Amino acid sequence: MRVGELSKRSGVPVPTIKYYLREGLLPAGVLTSPNQAHYDDEHLRRLRLVRALVDVGGLSIAGVRDVLAAVDTHDESLHNKLGAVQEAISHPGSGELDPLAVEDVQAFFERQGETECVDVTESNVTHMLASALSAARSVGHDQFRDLLDSYLEGLKIIAQADLDYVARHSSSDDIIEAMVVGTLIGDTVIKAVRRLAHAQVSREVLGGGPADPAS
Amino acid sequence: MRVGELSKRSGVPVPTIKYYLREGLLPAGVLTSPNQAHYDDEHLRRLRLVRALVDVGGLSIAGVRDVLAAVDTHDESLHNKLGAVQEAISHPGSGELDPLAVEDVQAFFERQGETECVDVTESNVTHMLASALSAARSVGHDQFRDLLDSYLEGLKIIAQADLDYVARHSSSDDIIEAMVVGTLIGDTVIKAVRRLAHAQVSREVLGGGPADPAS
Repeated sequence: MRVGELSKRSGVPVPTIKYYLREGLLPAGVLTSPNQAHYDDEHLRRLRLVRALVDVGGLSIAGVRDVLAAVDTHDESLHNKLGAVQEAISHPGSGELDPLAVEDVQAFFERQGETECVDVTESNVTHMLASALSAARSVGHDQFRDLLDSYLEGLKIIAQADLDYVARHSSSDDIIEAMVVGTLIGDTVIKAVRRLAHAQVSREVLGGGPADPAS
Repeated sequence: MRVGELSKRSGVPVPTIKYYLREGLLPAGVLTSPNQAHYDDEHLRRLRLVRALVDVGGLSIAGVRDVLAAVDTHDESLHNKLGAVQEAISHPGSGELDPLAVEDVQAFFERQGETECVDVTESNVTHMLASALSAARSVGHDQFRDLLDSYLEGLKIIAQADLDYVARHSSSDDIIEAMVVGTLIGDTVIKAVRRLAHAQVSREVLGGGPADPAS
């Protein structure tokens, strides 16, 4: 297909596609004449992945380049690639880490059968967890750590659904694109559905009755 | 206790306490002399709630005032108060709503036995859900709605743990403070633990082996 068709099928404007080409985020098309290049489904898939990283993930061009380098490493398993992309789209959180919150994370990992000592700052994901538990401790909620095991139990159900969704796609780029979209948009969906679940459980536990106008 | 002791026990600086007093977020203490007021545990609880709304919830002073008005309405059930506070600390999301995403939310509610038509923009929580599904649709992930039922299943486990945590507290202010902290800090904890659950499930499904260095 020509660049106009690529734009139409991807929803990405032609000038943006040209920008991605110049930045090396999209491989050049095959020249069919000095002024015309031909693109295929691989380009379309890659373009969707770049757009998901930029628009949904909020990554910089340099960040996208790093992710694509990880995706294109041939000797990595898909599991490892997904892990690398997940790191790139996760923020470690800010604020000082409370050493006791770091211990909470360690203890959580030990309960999961992790015997080696985890350096929480080595991964954005564990850093995010330690940051959040530090924030809870700073407002006197030391016991918030008690919720971690129940959270993991519920989130395993969600992670299984997420992986099933991702597995509907076949090419590596499509799988990773679905994971980026599913992880980031899923975070917001989960926030909303969690609040709906709160309302359901609260109604069951605290009452409010079926005639409750807020239900 | 005097204001200095209130500051020490709450972790809130004296000038901030005085600001909250002037803004009416904290009821005045009992004057024991023209220049000295006495505060009790009710003040301490209210101060913790205000701090949670401001520091963790990011609410404006006007927003805090609205929440406190809801909390202090005597003829409301705790269930309704929790619902009002949850609305106040939830953002509807931005971007245009896709009518098909709104239908997805409707269908989701119908599967939950909700027979009446839901106006998704009436609540920040349902608006947030419709916004996120609209964002998914805008990048071609119409099928993301298929995940909602599994999400709710996992989040009911989490909501039950959340409500158990909140029920450890006895006064209304403490319960609502725990809910604010638990809801908002919990959002980040859930983001992190979800990613850890992804890694676990991905390792099981896609392999990577126990010697996988990223595990």
